[in-house]
Amino acid sequence: MGIEIERKFLVKDDSFKKDASEKHLYQQGYIEGPFMATVRVRIIEDTGYITIKSKSVNFTRYEYEYEIPLTDAQEMLTNLCGNKMEKYRHIVWFEGKRWEVDEFIGENKGLFVAELELKSEEEAFALPNWLGEEVTHDFRYRNSFISQNPFNTWE
Amino acid sequence: MGIEIERKFLVKDDSFKKDASEKHLYQQGYIEGPFMATVRVRIIEDTGYITIKSKSVNFTRYEYEYEIPLTDAQEMLTNLCGNKMEKYRHIVWFEGKRWEVDEFIGENKGLFVAELELKSEEEAFALPNWLGEEVTHDFRYRNSFISQNPFNTWE
Repeated sequence: MGIEIERKFLVKDDSFKKDASEKHLYQQGYIEGPFMATVRVRIIEDTGYITIKSKSVNFTRYEYEYEIPLTDAQEMLTNLCGNKMEKYRHIVWFEGKRWEVDEFIGENKGLFVAELELKSEEEAFALPNWLGEEVTHDFRYRNSFISQNPFNTWE
Repeated sequence: MGIEIERKFLVKDDSFKKDASEKHLYQQGYIEGPFMATVRVRIIEDTGYITIKSKSVNFTRYEYEYEIPLTDAQEMLTNLCGNKMEKYRHIVWFEGKRWEVDEFIGENKGLFVAELELKSEEEAFALPNWLGEEVTHDFRYRNSFISQNPFNTWE
């Protein structure tokens, strides 16, 4: 990261080509923020990640996650992310299944959400005693929604 | 990347904590697409990159670029990027300065733009013969604008 000073000019003709030392094909596009995907910056303890998640289309959701330098993740959280949240993620094994239980903190204190990843929609699993209502399809429990609408402001 | 099947539940009480095997702090935020930053997917020849660029604030622009697998970049270009473009980038050295000259193709055929990166705003440089009008502050020559408004549709 740094300050970028760049000057840009139109080009009169293609006579520059005879002096060019390199030529490379560039293909590029822009991820259109809230419409087609969300871009999440995350720090787990001391490790930074950036994640691109598409909205679900026909039950498929594209997700790409990359580890990035911690300082980059901290700067992006500070300078580029309007909405932030913090939580503790607990791992609880119950009858052979790995539950991720999120304990939200800060403005979302009091909210606990448990998630279970399955290999198929038919896969059976046992329900721990501490489990409450299913909210799989309730958009309010998406982290991106919570980050914009803290739990403590819900009616 | 893959299909994600996940079920989500509320949690009745914190009795799960006594059975938890791990606990980690997660801090996270969401980059708000068009408002605070653009997210660019780029393929240069056979290498993929993802770049997060903030808008300029007081002459400072945050930029973070990471190399990513080519197949990820191809999938993102196909599935997540509404607006795409292709160009050849030529490198031309002129009196000790490294010019990047972009030759746009496809719907932007006919457009050539030269860029020069400087270390300070006062740094002097010689002008090659093929250079045209300066467009440093003309937003239409930003690649993100061009990707949404192809050159061949300009009036």
